[in-house]
Amino acid sequence: MQSVRPSAAEQARTIAASTNAATLATLTADGDPWASFVAYGLLDGRPVLCVSNLAEHGRNLAGDPRASLSIVAASDDADPLSSSRITLSGIASEPSSTERDAVRAAYLSAVPAGRFFADFSDFTFWLLKVHRVRWVGGYGRMDSAAGAEYDVAAPDPVTPGADGAIAHLNADHADALAAIARAFGGYLDTDTAVCTAIDRYGMDIRVNTPRGIAYTRVGFRERLDAPGQLRAATAELAREAAAANR
Amino acid sequence: MQSVRPSAAEQARTIAASTNAATLATLTADGDPWASFVAYGLLDGRPVLCVSNLAEHGRNLAGDPRASLSIVAASDDADPLSSSRITLSGIASEPSSTERDAVRAAYLSAVPAGRFFADFSDFTFWLLKVHRVRWVGGYGRMDSAAGAEYDVAAPDPVTPGADGAIAHLNADHADALAAIARAFGGYLDTDTAVCTAIDRYGMDIRVNTPRGIAYTRVGFRERLDAPGQLRAATAELAREAAAANR
Repeated sequence: MQSVRPSAAEQARTIAASTNAATLATLTADGDPWASFVAYGLLDGRPVLCVSNLAEHGRNLAGDPRASLSIVAASDDADPLSSSRITLSGIASEPSSTERDAVRAAYLSAVPAGRFFADFSDFTFWLLKVHRVRWVGGYGRMDSAAGAEYDVAAPDPVTPGADGAIAHLNADHADALAAIARAFGGYLDTDTAVCTAIDRYGMDIRVNTPRGIAYTRVGFRERLDAPGQLRAATAELAREAAAANR
Repeated sequence: MQSVRPSAAEQARTIAASTNAATLATLTADGDPWASFVAYGLLDGRPVLCVSNLAEHGRNLAGDPRASLSIVAASDDADPLSSSRITLSGIASEPSSTERDAVRAAYLSAVPAGRFFADFSDFTFWLLKVHRVRWVGGYGRMDSAAGAEYDVAAPDPVTPGADGAIAHLNADHADALAAIARAFGGYLDTDTAVCTAIDRYGMDIRVNTPRGIAYTRVGFRERLDAPGQLRAATAELAREAAAANR
């Protein structure tokens, strides 16, 4: 049973694709760091900004193109430090004339309100070329990636179906999850199991055993490419687990 | 009827006090800007951080104390750019030995999970001395403040009761709100009115008139100092509006 996890570059692409709000770090004329809230779109993973030239971050980018973007995945957890987040660091540039239509469309697709200001003469589109990526997946889970890895990675294709699949598994297939944890998760004494996350490569599972709570991961047989494959992949694991536990 | 609004410094103190998560901008060894997610507490309005010396932002602060923090107020609006947010810019320093206990307590009060790491030898507390403040209250509402103004401003004292008061006014006192908008909001032809925000100085009101939708503000007679004063202050406005409309 493969237990591959998404790479840092894949995690970063998935988090970047999950929202449209971020914080930008730029440099003032004095070289001071300046943190400011921005909305963004994505063009092949590269963040697209549209900011006023009159705003401090707009003036900063015009003066020095070095920029960094922090993006935080939505979380229900009361502890902010358990959230997944990324830093993308690189160089911002104005799109070329051939890029401009695609850049504009990418921004407006993610930020519909942009239609009210994107074409004002004092607003400028900026495209961030990512040189360096830092991913933090909560406590003790973190890794780095190069810009080239980020550029070619894909956001997780099953994300749109993940929450539904998790709810369905936990509500209707708790016995199958426990069997999967016993057969493939390394916890032979699993009493009950809860799926906590699901991605293209597999499931994260929290198991209750007589010895206490533990966390494990079970991979799918093959990497998934669409949310529609989640049902078959999890059903296959359940069948194999039933056979293995027999 | 006074129509004073909170100052930029007051808005900033209120937003800073409303959450415990922010984005920090620091400088790398190369002087590049680096945006990273952090949790924070407040000591007399000054942000308190507790970060690992091994983390990039921890190394950055140790190398150059210039720092900036972006804080975004929670919002239900689908458009991120309608949210209220601030940038605090200044210099981070390690607390003095006399400050340390208060700094630690301020952090743990806002970030309870900090008890698991705050005393690790590789974690350092940082206190941000704010030199410059930028407040953006949504589209077209923005202002700056000096660090000295920020230091002496107070977070809005009625915030803890604001949501409840707004819900109560809109559910049970819609007629009174319309009367207030007619008498003191400058819209004599108000048909209906909705309270959209409330603060120590007054109420923001959206009015429907035969001419269309408009936005107005009505101030309280005196500045409020506690949530418990909201009921009397709004009831007083309602009485005076009823008398004025008679």
